[in-house]
Amino acid sequence: MKKAAILAIGSELMKGKMDDSNSTYISRWLHSNGIIVKWRISVGDDIEEIVNALNMFKDCDIIITTGGLGPTDDDCTREAVSKFLNRELVFNEEAWKKLEKMFLCKYKSAPQSNRKQADLIKGGVFLTNKAGTAPGIYVFDNNTSYFLLPGPPRENQLMLNHQVIKILKEKNLIAGVNYSEVFKLYNIGESTLADLFIDFKTDCNIGYYFSDKGWIELHINKSGAHNETLIKSVDDASIKIKNILDKNNIFYTENKDLGLLLLNLLKEKKMTISFAESITGGNLTGEFVKNAGASSCLSGSVVVYSNESKIKLLDVKEDTINKYGAVSSETVKEMVYGLKKIFNTDICVSVSGIAGPTGATKDKPLGLVHYGFFIKDKYFDKKEVFLGDRYRIMKRAINYAFIEIIKYFMK
Amino acid sequence: MKKAAILAIGSELMKGKMDDSNSTYISRWLHSNGIIVKWRISVGDDIEEIVNALNMFKDCDIIITTGGLGPTDDDCTREAVSKFLNRELVFNEEAWKKLEKMFLCKYKSAPQSNRKQADLIKGGVFLTNKAGTAPGIYVFDNNTSYFLLPGPPRENQLMLNHQVIKILKEKNLIAGVNYSEVFKLYNIGESTLADLFIDFKTDCNIGYYFSDKGWIELHINKSGAHNETLIKSVDDASIKIKNILDKNNIFYTENKDLGLLLLNLLKEKKMTISFAESITGGNLTGEFVKNAGASSCLSGSVVVYSNESKIKLLDVKEDTINKYGAVSSETVKEMVYGLKKIFNTDICVSVSGIAGPTGATKDKPLGLVHYGFFIKDKYFDKKEVFLGDRYRIMKRAINYAFIEIIKYFMK
Repeated sequence: MKKAAILAIGSELMKGKMDDSNSTYISRWLHSNGIIVKWRISVGDDIEEIVNALNMFKDCDIIITTGGLGPTDDDCTREAVSKFLNRELVFNEEAWKKLEKMFLCKYKSAPQSNRKQADLIKGGVFLTNKAGTAPGIYVFDNNTSYFLLPGPPRENQLMLNHQVIKILKEKNLIAGVNYSEVFKLYNIGESTLADLFIDFKTDCNIGYYFSDKGWIELHINKSGAHNETLIKSVDDASIKIKNILDKNNIFYTENKDLGLLLLNLLKEKKMTISFAESITGGNLTGEFVKNAGASSCLSGSVVVYSNESKIKLLDVKEDTINKYGAVSSETVKEMVYGLKKIFNTDICVSVSGIAGPTGATKDKPLGLVHYGFFIKDKYFDKKEVFLGDRYRIMKRAINYAFIEIIKYFMK
Repeated sequence: MKKAAILAIGSELMKGKMDDSNSTYISRWLHSNGIIVKWRISVGDDIEEIVNALNMFKDCDIIITTGGLGPTDDDCTREAVSKFLNRELVFNEEAWKKLEKMFLCKYKSAPQSNRKQADLIKGGVFLTNKAGTAPGIYVFDNNTSYFLLPGPPRENQLMLNHQVIKILKEKNLIAGVNYSEVFKLYNIGESTLADLFIDFKTDCNIGYYFSDKGWIELHINKSGAHNETLIKSVDDASIKIKNILDKNNIFYTENKDLGLLLLNLLKEKKMTISFAESITGGNLTGEFVKNAGASSCLSGSVVVYSNESKIKLLDVKEDTINKYGAVSSETVKEMVYGLKKIFNTDICVSVSGIAGPTGATKDKPLGLVHYGFFIKDKYFDKKEVFLGDRYRIMKRAINYAFIEIIKYFMK
């Protein structure tokens, strides 16, 4: 198996101003292509330090740098690699013409500071940037492939998946492979999970990772030379895992986005949906709308944050709120009936709860959320208490709403 | 100023299974204590690789490792540092008694695999772990301070803030301090920014960083020995920067959240707000609601994704939509008047646009967004084209709405 090194360049990293999410993404990307990540180094925007780091990577076949390709003075990755490889930088007229053209679409003139982005390391080629101005650079030197990628994740990820992968394949550097499956698990704690799998045996690697979006990811993977045996190992483990999850009534997806899963389900069934949101304040509809094509199923929604708006827009009775409170099964029921009157969608969902930090009482704890569901002329309600801060409670409340609808149709 | 290196140890990092949030935290922590982070390296759980990395840190005064102190076979940080420093590991009876006691509180017996956690590098001292089993280790060797910290963030952060800081102070390693200011800049490209500051002179460090939430962060900072001179330098630079931004009509905040800024403004003015959202699909209200206390200013909102819902809920005329389209200044005007009728808030905002990937026409490009604002009985509209994918267009459209209201009150 081939060995790789990742060099993340940027003084902001050294000051802890931002997470080095690039190195994580590229590590995963290389690993999934069966390449061993031997080194990960971060240094500031400094030619000498970049050269020192590059000197460490002598046993690596692939070296990927991120950052330092911008137009500002501190960006010096091109210069450092050029110095390290002892290959001069040559201004590339064609690349500058391309850059100029990009700027002239948006502005009156192309900033002169961007000229240095058209400098190419002698013997190298440019990698097209489909999402920004800084082109990447590829150089092959002394049996080693150097890829200089821009810092913004969207830009370098596109480059990895379109251009770097092509070169690695051409150079026959992807010898081994990695095969993996990922499950997203909802509404389950880490220790419960550990207990479930205490007697589970497999020849694959298993890892659990927490997402701050309210789920746990379960990764199963295996690396090696032969694709078929890998797939069989991982598939066998996946089937066993699914059995355990099903037996214990744990809701999971095969690494799918819940909102997209729901959208596809509704499209397939040609059904429409609307939401009446109190606690989630628009974020429930907003999460659904993040996926393109949502307009084919969503008529609209109402955010009824105040009691008055619940009464006025959804015909919730003032008495109901006074007697049972805004966070109650009685109120969400009237909310959903009011919503049905407005949009008359096949599915109507209402949600009311306590996101905090204030508003909790002895009977109604922080994180309590009531839901009303009206699906195909049938009404049912749900209630759950979510742990966490305001942000997490909202995220979990949104996931839960999507899950309940998906579960309804899975029955 | 003193120099530091961070070595994050763990094979899971090299596979991209998790973010290296430890290195980010420790970088920020060291930087804020006036210590320069010279190197950040990650390697797998492998003695030879750890030793190779430690060999890189010759010019550093402080070396902090994270991870590899657990009880399992792959954990080998203690062994590697012991080998590197040529100081043997000595089993510490007292530490093992402490560990045994911790286990006996929870379990019947202490696992023998944990015995290796009581191994101490000769000449070193243990650092108490207040949140887990693995104690940290401190060794001073050849004028360099080595801190071996456990991997879990909660455990190493407690150690940093309670024990490492104490040792650094005792050893007089915190000589300097760092002072910084951060600005968030909206609706501006990186190269325009570079051009604006092309003649700008300062003795502070200046850095620009892109956020995927649609702004650019401008960081000004300076490290050194004396607090007062630092503050003066950074303040002077900040004033000059503000002048440049103001002169060029660039909207910025002093590192504040736009939604929170708007919320505080509305609270202060005792004003209420409501939104009529098409393109943003609930995310505009959702962003406002993320801040606690939003309920004091927000009555409610409507998400009118379909034409029918615009007509039914907001009394937009069918003729208007047919003649000018749903994304037009005419439609957003009728939307905001309809919204005013429902909630009668002091501020009403309507927004309609094309988030893509489909829906763009020759006259109405992808990213076109129309806004209607009704503030204190005065109506005005705005129109803008945002670049990026669906996600970015929405983020920018949300920021823009908040900014226009804030700007209205700043006049």
